[in-house]
Amino acid sequence: MSEGARVWIVPDGFIPAESTGSQQSHEAICVLNTSAERARLSVSFYFEDRDPVKDVEVIVPPERTRHIRTDEIDGVEIPRGVPYAVRVESSVPVTVQVSRMDTTQPALSLMTAMAYPVER
Amino acid sequence: MSEGARVWIVPDGFIPAESTGSQQSHEAICVLNTSAERARLSVSFYFEDRDPVKDVEVIVPPERTRHIRTDEIDGVEIPRGVPYAVRVESSVPVTVQVSRMDTTQPALSLMTAMAYPVER
Amino acid sequence: MSEGARVWIVPDGFIPAESTGSQQSHEAICVLNTSAERARLSVSFYFEDRDPVKDVEVIVPPERTRHIRTDEIDGVEIPRGVPYAVRVESSVPVTVQVSRMDTTQPALSLMTAMAYPVER
Amino acid sequence: MSEGARVWIVPDGFIPAESTGSQQSHEAICVLNTSAERARLSVSFYFEDRDPVKDVEVIVPPERTRHIRTDEIDGVEIPRGVPYAVRVESSVPVTVQVSRMDTTQPALSLMTAMAYPVER
Repeated sequence: MSEGARVWIVPDGFIPAESTGSQQSHEAICVLNTSAERARLSVSFYFEDRDPVKDVEVIVPPERTRHIRTDEIDGVEIPRGVPYAVRVESSVPVTVQVSRMDTTQPALSLMTAMAYPVER
Repeated sequence: MSEGARVWIVPDGFIPAESTGSQQSHEAICVLNTSAERARLSVSFYFEDRDPVKDVEVIVPPERTRHIRTDEIDGVEIPRGVPYAVRVESSVPVTVQVSRMDTTQPALSLMTAMAYPVER
Repeated sequence: MSEGARVWIVPDGFIPAESTGSQQSHEAICVLNTSAERARLSVSFYFEDRDPVKDVEVIVPPERTRHIRTDEIDGVEIPRGVPYAVRVESSVPVTVQVSRMDTTQPALSLMTAMAYPVER
Repeated sequence: MSEGARVWIVPDGFIPAESTGSQQSHEAICVLNTSAERARLSVSFYFEDRDPVKDVEVIVPPERTRHIRTDEIDGVEIPRGVPYAVRVESSVPVTVQVSRMDTTQPALSLMTAMAYPVER
């Protein structure tokens, strides 16, 4: 079973600078690998005013999901309060959704979108 | 009339552990079947650290919608506060959208996305 | 210029029963018609436990957007607090997005998704 | 690398009239240009009851993202509290996502969606 796409784009990345209460403001890149093979992700981060950080490796095992917090990825430190964007390339087709929790003000807010699949 | 797709993917599933006020934190898989036939859904749930629970059956009658709460599906108990993902396969083409209500903190928050249609 | 699709699906419709503060809980079907022709929409509403209400007409003029509140459409009265779904068919290609404002609890919440385009 | 689409549509634009607290209600058109060329965007704004404002130019450098606030674009002044829609045309393929922050009431709310790609 090979489902999804091999390249996904998320234009709106932003980790809010502030948090209140028990929940920390964060974003997660959520990946589902329904295949029988390990998915090796190559994740790249783009910014408004400096060169991208490319090809950070993340693994998603076969028949597993991973909800990857962008403030906890080994190999890249994304500044808070700064616009960024993400490109995910995978060794096997996967599906990618991105979500943000914003707790800048009391009472958290959520948003989510399926990432954009680049057909290939 | 045969509209939509037969396989849909939702990478970001998460039922918040806590709730406040009159609304309980929950997620719903919302399905529309515009066809004249009964849609037999086979729903599979994927996790980060254990094997998936596959092929839970849900029925959507012809020309009906169903908003299926993932904490109320017969045949699977999804733990709260744990990342999961969903794959929906249907006997006829349908359309799938997923929404979350989070009432961890006073003042609920909502998020929604169309699921990702696997073309087949 | 003919942009978008002629049929769009929104599986998750729900007008919250309660509202607080100055904003009323509501949903809007937002349509953009970039063509030089008038778009005649035929909007159908599906429910969980009764027959659909089909073919309610709504007009979107050429080169105009319309943000159609589902609680203010002539020809259908959607009950609050009840799951529904929407199918939009247009005489010319348009683009459709759906948004919900929920003010059940103080501090409003928003969610949005592009509707699902049925290719034809 | 040429990724995304050259034309994108956002039907639901709305800049809330009011704001509370430290965050201002706003919307952003978030664009990622993964190509090695400069993307010249031609952005058009549609309304419910007047002619569109067409072809406002915005530049996105190669391998950069830009999160464009719609209340800060040179060449157009979008009134607050009024429904609008956006069409983005780019000289090279890009990916577009739109997000809204609403701080009408204390405790901000967010929503986001990938824009609709017109295939060409």
